[in-house]
Amino acid sequence: MNNIFAALPDNLDAEVFETLIDSDKLTVERIVSKGHTSPQTGWYNQESNEWVIVLQGEAKLVFENAPEEHLKAGDYINIPAHTRHRVSWTTPKQETIWLAIHY
Amino acid sequence: MNNIFAALPDNLDAEVFETLIDSDKLTVERIVSKGHTSPQTGWYNQESNEWVIVLQGEAKLVFENAPEEHLKAGDYINIPAHTRHRVSWTTPKQETIWLAIHY
Repeated sequence: MNNIFAALPDNLDAEVFETLIDSDKLTVERIVSKGHTSPQTGWYNQESNEWVIVLQGEAKLVFENAPEEHLKAGDYINIPAHTRHRVSWTTPKQETIWLAIHY
Repeated sequence: MNNIFAALPDNLDAEVFETLIDSDKLTVERIVSKGHTSPQTGWYNQESNEWVIVLQGEAKLVFENAPEEHLKAGDYINIPAHTRHRVSWTTPKQETIWLAIHY
């Protein structure tokens, strides 16, 4: 048993991605951000679908041709493959902890 | 965008299961318990793997031939297919909210 809020990385110079499940059907990861935006340039444009939930902290997601979404603890969203998006803001005040399912 | 902690069911005579993702690769569901144990008799013995996290509340999971696990907010565990297990307790004090990934 592990805890999603525990063992946060000491070094958050960059966002930290940790794989929790890696199977042929899906990948589940914990992402820890603190004031980061991503990707550095341009948009994410992924081959697979992504379902993502913010479990701690706050973040803003921008989708091409759509209003910005402000996610707080418990907010989740499904991002179909090839939906261009980016993380435009994460709070600098604390770690933002995401759980992401790529499928 | 939705929130995992919102829109809790009014009627919790039984545990409430809601599907958040249903694809050929995986199923993701929110489970809301309040004092329930499950299954009613015997063990869960599932065809697929299950990764489960408690996001609110508390629960106890029992595995065949293993000590009981007491899960609190943020605790997660992976349950391989055909691992016999049961939910032996959930707190009656508040809703326990689980996110379960079946894959």
